[in-house]
Amino acid sequence: MYDVVIVGSGPAGLSAAVYARRAKLKTLVIEKAGYSGGQIVNTSDVDNYLGLQGIEGFEMAMKFRTHAEHFEAEFLDDEVVSIQDKEDGTYDIVLKSDKDISTKTIILATGASYDKLHVPGEAEYTGRGVSYCATCDGAFYKGKIAAVVGGGDVALEDALYLSNMADKVYLIHRRDELRGAKVLQDKVFAADNIMFMPDTVVSSINGSDGLVSSIDTKNVKTNMEENISVNGIFIAVGMKPNVSYINELVELDKAGYVVASEDGITSKKGIFVAGDMRTKVLRQVITAVSDGANAVASVEKYLREQN
Amino acid sequence: MYDVVIVGSGPAGLSAAVYARRAKLKTLVIEKAGYSGGQIVNTSDVDNYLGLQGIEGFEMAMKFRTHAEHFEAEFLDDEVVSIQDKEDGTYDIVLKSDKDISTKTIILATGASYDKLHVPGEAEYTGRGVSYCATCDGAFYKGKIAAVVGGGDVALEDALYLSNMADKVYLIHRRDELRGAKVLQDKVFAADNIMFMPDTVVSSINGSDGLVSSIDTKNVKTNMEENISVNGIFIAVGMKPNVSYINELVELDKAGYVVASEDGITSKKGIFVAGDMRTKVLRQVITAVSDGANAVASVEKYLREQN
Repeated sequence: MYDVVIVGSGPAGLSAAVYARRAKLKTLVIEKAGYSGGQIVNTSDVDNYLGLQGIEGFEMAMKFRTHAEHFEAEFLDDEVVSIQDKEDGTYDIVLKSDKDISTKTIILATGASYDKLHVPGEAEYTGRGVSYCATCDGAFYKGKIAAVVGGGDVALEDALYLSNMADKVYLIHRRDELRGAKVLQDKVFAADNIMFMPDTVVSSINGSDGLVSSIDTKNVKTNMEENISVNGIFIAVGMKPNVSYINELVELDKAGYVVASEDGITSKKGIFVAGDMRTKVLRQVITAVSDGANAVASVEKYLREQN
Repeated sequence: MYDVVIVGSGPAGLSAAVYARRAKLKTLVIEKAGYSGGQIVNTSDVDNYLGLQGIEGFEMAMKFRTHAEHFEAEFLDDEVVSIQDKEDGTYDIVLKSDKDISTKTIILATGASYDKLHVPGEAEYTGRGVSYCATCDGAFYKGKIAAVVGGGDVALEDALYLSNMADKVYLIHRRDELRGAKVLQDKVFAADNIMFMPDTVVSSINGSDGLVSSIDTKNVKTNMEENISVNGIFIAVGMKPNVSYINELVELDKAGYVVASEDGITSKKGIFVAGDMRTKVLRQVITAVSDGANAVASVEKYLREQN
């Protein structure tokens, strides 16, 4: 019987592992990917995690994993199929390998995935000019040209954020009208260096020397095709939390995120959540790592109040 | 006119500086101490900040400061005397040097201070066996002997946390009854290795080779004095947020912390809060750094909605 099983080994899960092991909890981390780090593994540089300035995503993932291993967190390469609650208040975790894990508490930390465009070059250049997070990567585009794809609040915020550093920002949206808040739209249209391209889709992302150099676009009304030189493309067409294995065990908001405030306490006793899959405003490495610490504090409190 | 003035240069303030500068905000950090890092400067080792395992507090402070300087955050050595709100929604910050700073927004990040015992040896051995945070430093006491001073929830939680690693824990309280929650008291009394010393005060903290080696105690009823060998002493007699300069500008809770959820938005428009001085459950370096990022996200949103 584990004290806590952490599902997911991104920044939130690994931070939870460190805090749980330092609190001497019997701890298991289940990772599906076969490696640790989550989304940061596909990120070229992370520049905003205080104290690790300008670190490569992969190196950061290694450092995080090493830290968790230092405190002898136990890792298991497997995938959670479902979670069953038992009458005595503990949980059974059913794994793809058919193994069965018993635990007193669970920290959900399987993150979220950005919706993709599914166009040629997107996967190949992810972290090399293709980004899903302007707050994370925007600062690298000083004096450069960037494209943003999407029409919601996030896309407009990304375009505005980038317009403060990039020379020029193309805002590409497949419809003729933006969906985002009017106040954001006003600012986008007022910005000298944001060029709005309505009714337009990206058909291909092209690179040279391993970095994005241009995109091919098509106007869906006129069928006109263009090749536009850009140094980067920010894809802001949505995000989905990875919650398929949770079923109806905990409350989700309408976008599918696990409802919890910063303490990570979900609607279900003994189940906690940390990182991008939690309802929160800012999804960053640093906020995920902080969540891991908070979730363990809540686990400890919960375990103290039991038995 | 600054976009944002950050008051305080601990982990929360420095993280806010990184995020603010990456967002190209005109940013000033005011630090009173003459050096950056806040409480961590007085911490020997920090072992739970993911990715910087086993780092010395002072080195961590230097890394944090260097990171903020990399993004050209502006620093000012001065002390904030008061903050005045102006009719146009901006703020004037009055400094001890008589200088006057104008800004659109403020992030309060001056932290909190632990209440002290004020006994000989306490200041000298802080970070060398004297600690104010079991979650931070408890893991260093595996197989050792520790004392906890206090009688509230935090003291009881600290004693229980330490009892999982230390061989023996003395819980020292100046009254005959503990104040903390009954459920915690039950566990303290049930723990084999926690020895409760009621009616007792610590009169001196003694060391050898620069580390704590014993404490002198006195029973306030019997006047009996003892010398007890310990490797560390955890002082959990209270904490006060550093809010003297805020006056009644923002809502404080009854313990004096600035009321805000994780987004750092206070009761006063344009004023945000990050780190230990915010109402929150877990006060750690990592949660403070996360707060800094969150507060800047709120500042950006606020500035977008103005003008």
